[in-house]
Amino acid sequence: MDDRIAKIRGHMQTNGLDSLLITDPKHVYYLTGFASDPHERFLGLFIPDGDEAFLLLPALDEDKARSASSVPRIETHTDTDNPYVRLKQFVKGSIGNLGIEKENLSVARYEQLSEVLGATSYQDIGSMLNSMRSRKSPDEVKRMKHSIQLIEEVLRRGLSSVRIGVTEIELVAELEYQMKKVGAEKPAFDTMVLSGPNTALPHGVPGTRKIAANELLMFDLGLFADGYASDITRTFAIGEIDAELNKVYHTVLAANEAAIQATKPGVTFASIDKAARDVITEAGYGSRFVHRLGHGLGMDTHEYPSVHGQNENLLQECVLFTVEPGIYIPGHGGVRIEDDVIVTADGVEVLSSFPKELTVLG
Amino acid sequence: MDDRIAKIRGHMQTNGLDSLLITDPKHVYYLTGFASDPHERFLGLFIPDGDEAFLLLPALDEDKARSASSVPRIETHTDTDNPYVRLKQFVKGSIGNLGIEKENLSVARYEQLSEVLGATSYQDIGSMLNSMRSRKSPDEVKRMKHSIQLIEEVLRRGLSSVRIGVTEIELVAELEYQMKKVGAEKPAFDTMVLSGPNTALPHGVPGTRKIAANELLMFDLGLFADGYASDITRTFAIGEIDAELNKVYHTVLAANEAAIQATKPGVTFASIDKAARDVITEAGYGSRFVHRLGHGLGMDTHEYPSVHGQNENLLQECVLFTVEPGIYIPGHGGVRIEDDVIVTADGVEVLSSFPKELTVLG
Repeated sequence: MDDRIAKIRGHMQTNGLDSLLITDPKHVYYLTGFASDPHERFLGLFIPDGDEAFLLLPALDEDKARSASSVPRIETHTDTDNPYVRLKQFVKGSIGNLGIEKENLSVARYEQLSEVLGATSYQDIGSMLNSMRSRKSPDEVKRMKHSIQLIEEVLRRGLSSVRIGVTEIELVAELEYQMKKVGAEKPAFDTMVLSGPNTALPHGVPGTRKIAANELLMFDLGLFADGYASDITRTFAIGEIDAELNKVYHTVLAANEAAIQATKPGVTFASIDKAARDVITEAGYGSRFVHRLGHGLGMDTHEYPSVHGQNENLLQECVLFTVEPGIYIPGHGGVRIEDDVIVTADGVEVLSSFPKELTVLG
Repeated sequence: MDDRIAKIRGHMQTNGLDSLLITDPKHVYYLTGFASDPHERFLGLFIPDGDEAFLLLPALDEDKARSASSVPRIETHTDTDNPYVRLKQFVKGSIGNLGIEKENLSVARYEQLSEVLGATSYQDIGSMLNSMRSRKSPDEVKRMKHSIQLIEEVLRRGLSSVRIGVTEIELVAELEYQMKKVGAEKPAFDTMVLSGPNTALPHGVPGTRKIAANELLMFDLGLFADGYASDITRTFAIGEIDAELNKVYHTVLAANEAAIQATKPGVTFASIDKAARDVITEAGYGSRFVHRLGHGLGMDTHEYPSVHGQNENLLQECVLFTVEPGIYIPGHGGVRIEDDVIVTADGVEVLSSFPKELTVLG
């Protein structure tokens, strides 16, 4: 953790920042080893240039923070304190240029904070932190591989419960039970099991619909293990599916593979989105691929970078993200195939290994 | 839903607001019936004074929105659009005073939004919306009762798995499996099962610690059903517990009951927090009750009001919140007893009914 804070202190000097206030709980976890969900309570890591960093957190998290945080100085506030006034008490002198996360800080909090702290300017440090977190260390890659390995084991076990007549939510319950059994902390997001025409809803919610023959069945699932999220999607056929769904499946698979093929350092994120989108457009389904190619993955299920057609940033080694093209035909069915990949020195490593060939269940 | 929007239009006129932009997904759900989790994507309900309201949402949620929203006009943006530029396209003329939720809007989003929309002023409407949502309608009370009934059934079933040697996370897995089985949408928060000295951590995380004899076992759990969250806590004894833990238990129980006794329209939230805190302070544990008495509960697990010693707002009929005093003795054990209550015309109705007398398991 200390080398991460050292890196940030370097950034402060380069960018003329007097102090940093870091409020995203995941950034705080990344920098201190202290994981928490403060809900609406205030949590902040304050890093003054050339002075000791400290955590200001809700009193009820103090014990946990003292045992987990690599930053030794811990200050607390209670539910009746004004946390910004508390913060001001621990800040020496006046603040010039303060680094804050503009994506994470609400307007209300910012107004209270700026009134009390009175820094002369506020500079966004969110993209610096996001970009730091997007490049995974060897230890983080190990944790990610473990998280992905576990979710694939969960999917494998879950498939054995698939049969005609079982409902979507029964499969969700079984999958989440298996997550706990393999040792996951929790699901990385609401586990999605959709069947038949519901597979055409990219953000559908599992319900009491029963799995039937000759339709698609889609699983989008992930879990947290050791603080890191996995996220994969596979779509299966229940018995025989019609020619259109077959074509859709093989188009999405080709798009997934084309994007992976295109992934290497130095190309733009837009170009790998395009690699997948071109395959889908050529097959006549361009308007049915209604979302971006993927998103960064790590301590958050959705993190930097966003992999879409307008992202002209270049891929760098060690950046980890999802590749998840999809085609959705309203009222009929949809297919999405999602892998987790990491950029290597000269290409890509696909971290997820669950088979992608069309598999018929039941 | 339409009467809720009508109420808001009344508020707009009273407060000189030209238009409202509502971005909290739960507020949007409350006002339109369309539930979604847009993650980092933009979701907004725009209500111009005297003109038709519309939803602007990610294209991939369009079908779901069309089938669920009581606001018929739906506009969409894709991942490559600038959503604020899209929004501006659908706004007629210029905006004077725009109502936004300053708690919900990030500084980054606000900066982009204000650059494109160029309203002359921005007024916070968060507390108006929160206050509206804090007073539950008869239909909402029905859903809350159902959600609480389900979580109590889950706890009842879960208790049958408690035995010496079972781990905290095994109990969590069983409870969350039972949540799905009773028909819950999902847990309302990370289910908490803590044992022995871990019960002294108000925000502890369940782990592989095994339940042992002569210690405490704490369950803090809730679920979403029909869009509404329940949230209850019960603490049990495994076999015989020592005199101090016994005293702690009965002090917390008395504090819980004192707060409930004090609950009625017209008194302050601070006064009911004090009713509980006085009992705990008199018993010598004042410094060990390190959090507020409770929080509002409904479409969100933590919503308005915050029930603490500085909240001088008055309780009103139909406001629903948790009552959850606790005492935490580091290294030894902690007790919390949490009920969900609603203010009635002349007092209070306790919606949770799980027994509170000290129960010995195993």
